[in-house]
Amino acid sequence: MSAHSHEIEEGLAFLPRFDAAGLVTVVATDVATGDVLMVAHMNEEALRKTVATGEAWYFSRSRNALWRKGESSGQTQRVLEMRTDCDQDAIWLRVEQTGAACHTGRRSCFYRRVEQADGGGDARLVFVDADRLFDPNTVYRK
Amino acid sequence: MSAHSHEIEEGLAFLPRFDAAGLVTVVATDVATGDVLMVAHMNEEALRKTVATGEAWYFSRSRNALWRKGESSGQTQRVLEMRTDCDQDAIWLRVEQTGAACHTGRRSCFYRRVEQADGGGDARLVFVDADRLFDPNTVYRK
Repeated sequence: MSAHSHEIEEGLAFLPRFDAAGLVTVVATDVATGDVLMVAHMNEEALRKTVATGEAWYFSRSRNALWRKGESSGQTQRVLEMRTDCDQDAIWLRVEQTGAACHTGRRSCFYRRVEQADGGGDARLVFVDADRLFDPNTVYRK
Repeated sequence: MSAHSHEIEEGLAFLPRFDAAGLVTVVATDVATGDVLMVAHMNEEALRKTVATGEAWYFSRSRNALWRKGESSGQTQRVLEMRTDCDQDAIWLRVEQTGAACHTGRRSCFYRRVEQADGGGDARLVFVDADRLFDPNTVYRK
C-alpha cells in the first residue's frame, strides 16, 4: 500500500475524495430504525455546512445547486453521527428525520423491493413502506 | 412530472438508471444491526447475478472487473432484501455479512467518525468500531 493510501485509510485527517464533478456519495439512515432513507451527494460546501450546523446539506445534481435538506418541504435531517469510509469517497449520516426524506412524500426513497421475476436474473418491483406522509403536489407547489 | 418520470418513480418495472460508466450505486447494510457496511457499485451483470444467486456481486471501478463479494476473502454477503430508490439509480441491500465487509478487515468500511474540529466546518476523524476481524496482509497475500 502506498503512503498516500495508508494515510487515506488509516489516518485521522479528513481528506474527502471528490469525484470529477466535485462530489462524494452520501447515505442517510434513520437513527431510529436503521433504514436507508436516501442516497445523495455533497460537494465541499455541503460537507462543511453539514459539519458546521449539524443539519444535512446536499448538492443537487439535477438542479446543480447546494440544498439544505428540507428547505422547501420542511422535512429536515438532524445529523447525530457522520462517518466516512475506508477510501473516503462516501459519507454515512445517521439522522433524525423530520417526516419524510423522499420528494415523493415517503419516509424513505427505498419504497420498492426488487424481487426475482423468473427464477433467473430478471426482476420486478413490489411496493413496501410506501405510504405518503405528505402530498408532494402541495408541498412543492407543482 | 413526465410520463417517463412517473413510470420510474411509481411503476413496478425495474428500470435501473445506470450512469455514464454503466453503474448504479449500492449501499449494503447489516441486517442484524442496521449499520452501513459499504458503498459500492454494480453494472447490469452484477445486478443480474445478485438477483439470480441471492449473493452480492459488484463491479470494481479500480479493477474494472465484475466481482463476487468474498471471492478472495471468503467474506460473502447473503442478500435478504434488495430495494431500489425513487429514481432507480441506487440500490439498497440488506445482507447477512460473513465476517468483515471491508478490505481492511473491519466489519464495516465506515470505521471512522467525522467530528467537528474547530466549532466551524473543519473536521477530523476518530476511530469507532475499528477492530480487525481478519488480517488483510494474509487474506489478500500482498
